[in-house]
Amino acid sequence: MHRSRTYAIIIDTPEAEVSAAADFWSGVFGTRARPEPAEPQFQVLSRAIPGLVTAVQSVDAAARYHLDIETDDVAAEVARLVALGATEVATWLDCHVLRAPGGHLLCVIPVAGDPEVFRAEARTWPDQASGVDGVDPGAGKQPANGSG
Amino acid sequence: MHRSRTYAIIIDTPEAEVSAAADFWSGVFGTRARPEPAEPQFQVLSRAIPGLVTAVQSVDAAARYHLDIETDDVAAEVARLVALGATEVATWLDCHVLRAPGGHLLCVIPVAGDPEVFRAEARTWPDQASGVDGVDPGAGKQPANGSG
Repeated sequence: MHRSRTYAIIIDTPEAEVSAAADFWSGVFGTRARPEPAEPQFQVLSRAIPGLVTAVQSVDAAARYHLDIETDDVAAEVARLVALGATEVATWLDCHVLRAPGGHLLCVIPVAGDPEVFRAEARTWPDQASGVDGVDPGAGKQPANGSG
Repeated sequence: MHRSRTYAIIIDTPEAEVSAAADFWSGVFGTRARPEPAEPQFQVLSRAIPGLVTAVQSVDAAARYHLDIETDDVAAEVARLVALGATEVATWLDCHVLRAPGGHLLCVIPVAGDPEVFRAEARTWPDQASGVDGVDPGAGKQPANGSG
């Protein structure tokens, strides 16, 4: 079993337009765009959307949004999403970039936010062999169906 | 003054791929994709992301995500975002489609969710003439700095 939750919405922006985009989105949300010292390609829009990290990222690509999913087991979460139909696009540092059926991008990353939030909100996923439906954190243990 | 908040993230998907996309995203989030009876182009992913309506929308365009912003005054919110640098792209039913500096799409719609959530979470924006910074709902009045 492993766990995951939606962690962030990233506003990927061509480098030449990042400054204008950061100014715009900070105005939209009424917050400041602050550079992330350890990852200068990001400008974080704090408290822009409750519960979801929001940031403008400088990219060498066309403008797009993407979602970040944080997990306590990146390999297992990537395998789960691939089994659901995603294709692997790239790996960049800790981030595994996937393309969804339909064409949207999403990234799988190790737990990046508050561990307490992750503990409270992440969903639990059974091993691939037993299916892909999510199990709520509070769900009871399944009764034993046999002793093998 | 008027108010607004981020209401939804919409997974815009080319019509031919909507079925596969809805299946994929329902698996990602561990929820069901349910058609919206009044708006059949939407398949809503209930409780996918806390606090944010999440839906797959069939579109006659390339795959993209977009954000919906709900407001108690669509004209004033569109004017606010245009003043921040957005350009108006289209109007479709109640939805005003804007393009952000950098190229991302966002829509402004009348309040669509729970009025209590809107009351609790929406930010308050002063008239254009007095600036575009957000005011928190609980903020006190500024002291008078003079009588003119």
